[in-house]
Amino acid sequence: MSAYDIMLQRRSVRKFTDQQVTDEQIDTLLKAAMAAPSACNKQPWEFYVIKNADTLKSIKGASLFTKMNSTLIIIVAGNTHRALPKPAQDFWVQDCSAATQNILLAATEMGLGACWCGVHPVKLFAQKVQKILNLPSHIIPMSMIQIGYPDQSPEPRTQYNEKHVHVVE
Amino acid sequence: MSAYDIMLQRRSVRKFTDQQVTDEQIDTLLKAAMAAPSACNKQPWEFYVIKNADTLKSIKGASLFTKMNSTLIIIVAGNTHRALPKPAQDFWVQDCSAATQNILLAATEMGLGACWCGVHPVKLFAQKVQKILNLPSHIIPMSMIQIGYPDQSPEPRTQYNEKHVHVVE
Repeated sequence: MSAYDIMLQRRSVRKFTDQQVTDEQIDTLLKAAMAAPSACNKQPWEFYVIKNADTLKSIKGASLFTKMNSTLIIIVAGNTHRALPKPAQDFWVQDCSAATQNILLAATEMGLGACWCGVHPVKLFAQKVQKILNLPSHIIPMSMIQIGYPDQSPEPRTQYNEKHVHVVE
Repeated sequence: MSAYDIMLQRRSVRKFTDQQVTDEQIDTLLKAAMAAPSACNKQPWEFYVIKNADTLKSIKGASLFTKMNSTLIIIVAGNTHRALPKPAQDFWVQDCSAATQNILLAATEMGLGACWCGVHPVKLFAQKVQKILNLPSHIIPMSMIQIGYPDQSPEPRTQYNEKHVHVVE
C-alpha cells in the first residue's frame, strides 16, 4: 500500500485487542518518529515507552478521554533544553507533532491502531504526566499515543474540503 | 515503497529544477494534508497555495533561510476561530503540523522535494505572511512548505537515537 493510502487509512483507534505490540514493532515506530524533520535539526524530542500496567493506568487518568484499553502508550515530549533558543524555541511542538504523525502512520502500516491524545498545551494534563514520569520541568509531555492491535476498523478517508484551499495564481 | 521507507526518504530539499508541479499533484498533497488527525476533529487549517511569481518572491522574504528557488509554496495556517476553545485552543499547531508532515510525505512519494520552513511562533514572520496574503488576525501562518522537483538527493535516513528513548516496564 502506498504512503498516501496509509495516510487515508490512518484513523483514530480507541479500542484494542489483548494482543501485545512487540519490542521490534516499537523499535520501528521510534525509527519512524526520529525520521521526522525538526527545526534546525535540533531533534528536541524524548519518547517515553510505557508498558508497565500501573503506570499505564496512572497515565490514562492524566488527561481527558484517555481511558482506552491500550497496553502500550508512547509519550512524545519536548526537551526545551535541546530546542532552539527563543524566539524560535517553541518550534519543538511542531517537531514533536511531525514525530507523532510518523508514529501513527508507521503503526497503521504495521496493522496496529493508535490514537493521538493531546497533553500540552493544557498545563494540568502536562503537569500530571510530568509528575507520574518524574520529569524535570524542561521536559514537556506533548502527546500521549495509545497503541495496540485494533478492535475497530474505521473506514479510510480524507476530509478534503475545498473551502480550506486558497490559491494565489 | 512502504510508508516507512517514504518517511526515511523524506529529507529537506532546498534546491529545485524548473519542472512545474501539476494541479493534480497539488490536489493529492492537499488530500493527504486533510487526512491528518486534528483535536476533536476541528480541522482548524487553511492552505494557501502560492503559484504567483510576485507573491512567491514576497513570501520567501518573510522568513529566514527561505530564499529557495521553488515555484510552489503551500502555507499551512491555523484558523483559530475553528479550533478548540481555550485552554485547548493551541492544539491547532499540532493539527497543522500533522497536516504539514503528510504533505511532505506525499510529496516525497510523488518524486517531489519539499522543505518545511517555520513561521509561527515567530511573530515577525507570521505577521509578514499575514500582511502579504491579507489574512485576518485569527488566521495564523504556521509553516511555509517549499515544493518542487528536487535538484539534490539527500540520502534516506532515520536519526534514531537510543538516548531519546525511555522505557517504563
